[in-house]
Amino acid sequence: MLQDIADKKNVEIVEVGPRDGLQNEKNVLALQDKVKLIDSLIKAGIKQIEATSFVHPKWVPQLADASELMENIRNIKGRDGVRVSVLIPNQKGFSRAMDVGVEEICLFVSASESHNQENVNMTPEDSINNFKDIIKTARSNNIRVRNIIVCAFACPFEGKVDPEAVLELANKLQELGTNEVILADTIGHANPKQVFDLFNMMQKNIEGINLSAHFHDTMGMGLANVVAALEAGIYKFDASIGGLGGCPYAPGASGNIATEELVNMLHTMGFETGIDLDRILEAVDMLEGFIGRSVQTHLKTFRATCSR
Amino acid sequence: MLQDIADKKNVEIVEVGPRDGLQNEKNVLALQDKVKLIDSLIKAGIKQIEATSFVHPKWVPQLADASELMENIRNIKGRDGVRVSVLIPNQKGFSRAMDVGVEEICLFVSASESHNQENVNMTPEDSINNFKDIIKTARSNNIRVRNIIVCAFACPFEGKVDPEAVLELANKLQELGTNEVILADTIGHANPKQVFDLFNMMQKNIEGINLSAHFHDTMGMGLANVVAALEAGIYKFDASIGGLGGCPYAPGASGNIATEELVNMLHTMGFETGIDLDRILEAVDMLEGFIGRSVQTHLKTFRATCSR
Repeated sequence: MLQDIADKKNVEIVEVGPRDGLQNEKNVLALQDKVKLIDSLIKAGIKQIEATSFVHPKWVPQLADASELMENIRNIKGRDGVRVSVLIPNQKGFSRAMDVGVEEICLFVSASESHNQENVNMTPEDSINNFKDIIKTARSNNIRVRNIIVCAFACPFEGKVDPEAVLELANKLQELGTNEVILADTIGHANPKQVFDLFNMMQKNIEGINLSAHFHDTMGMGLANVVAALEAGIYKFDASIGGLGGCPYAPGASGNIATEELVNMLHTMGFETGIDLDRILEAVDMLEGFIGRSVQTHLKTFRATCSR
Repeated sequence: MLQDIADKKNVEIVEVGPRDGLQNEKNVLALQDKVKLIDSLIKAGIKQIEATSFVHPKWVPQLADASELMENIRNIKGRDGVRVSVLIPNQKGFSRAMDVGVEEICLFVSASESHNQENVNMTPEDSINNFKDIIKTARSNNIRVRNIIVCAFACPFEGKVDPEAVLELANKLQELGTNEVILADTIGHANPKQVFDLFNMMQKNIEGINLSAHFHDTMGMGLANVVAALEAGIYKFDASIGGLGGCPYAPGASGNIATEELVNMLHTMGFETGIDLDRILEAVDMLEGFIGRSVQTHLKTFRATCSR
């Protein structure tokens, strides 16, 4: 119950803005601007970053410089204490990532067949089969593996997703030796009750599973879903500065929960994140300059009003 | 726990947009536009509306037509099934309201002394003393009384508010015979843990108290706070279409939780509100025409994107 949740003092935040955020922006950022942004995130106390994606540049030109980026952030001050993750679509992307050296990869599969077909042109089962070798190689090279189940709550094509389908995928991923399973509400349609129920069901049915959550704020329910997940015992969340993000293959999807709003809520609730809110807001300011537009999170607007 | 909350199927929503929303808009709406807006809200299934305020027109010129509005909405189709409430600042405002006939009044006092001084130029104790006769007269005339404790969680001048101060005020209001006490997060600084704790504490300490909640979305925590209140057993919420609102005497305060986002969340969680979401969104469209600007709720933006 909410009464008890602040007993757990630490909540982990994975900043996914440089990947999930920037891949959805019209403006393609210069390599050096991306480095500056990641530098400012590390200075703000972010300890886990999804920095880029090794998807083919044809599909995501915004992140075509993935290898160069990994080289260029290597010497950022404080980099050693930060776990940098990269999104991997397939064996080829994994090989490119291995060439530059990575410490964590994130593999995605959709709980909805239609969305997985739209996204990677294969069934979820085929995606899982393709993960087998990747996970094996990763683990034997001391590379940590996160598996994100996208559309775990709702699909833009099929509507509500069957929890059994999510459970089945998670079970298979657990068998393959993944380090972590992320349940993602890719299109932001999940509600707090559904979030609580699904995370609860997963924990009851899969022994030792290490779960985290990835929410979008399409309907304004993002932070409400975080509260529901906290109550289900989930203490790790993906978030994106400025609430950037979306999904190019999910019509109507809007941004991730905003890192600054998540950090603010967690801190006011008594949790610790190790993140400095003021510095995160400075990173958001920097981001706005790079993407050429203002972000519209409630907190950002509030701070702008107050400093007038 | 979240597991159990949907056992309670009905949640009451009080639409406060015509009062809390419009009093913060630069554009002063024509009387007939206000009537059209209230008509569309009733058509959407809203059963409780805070329609206007009998504050002196010098302070809130936007609602100077309070008496005329009450007369003009009298014959709206479906009006009989709707409880219309009005904000009352003092004995004089109450007399004006009595002259046109009202069924429910809302009296406000701040849990923070500084804010109450700024708002009505007296101590909270003096406000309570002034309520005594009003509540007595109201009850003996079959007028229902809501008492809103503003700044119940945080004050723009004093910061975090002492729960004991809120408890003391609520106790006095209960003694005076109020029908309902609303805890308001006027500046949108409350967090879900605080919300859960304060509502719990009030219920434990004041027998038979009838509580509801009024949240603002300044930090993006509005719906998260609703979830926390639901868990504490609160099933009645103020909300404002389009997320309009604020407080002219509370720097940095932004809009109320948006009715459309609240309704959507509650419905997806399995609650019933009696409100038609599509029709509420039509009322928001109408509102945008009247106030001369677009509202920026997540849900509204989402719907606009999808219908493109």
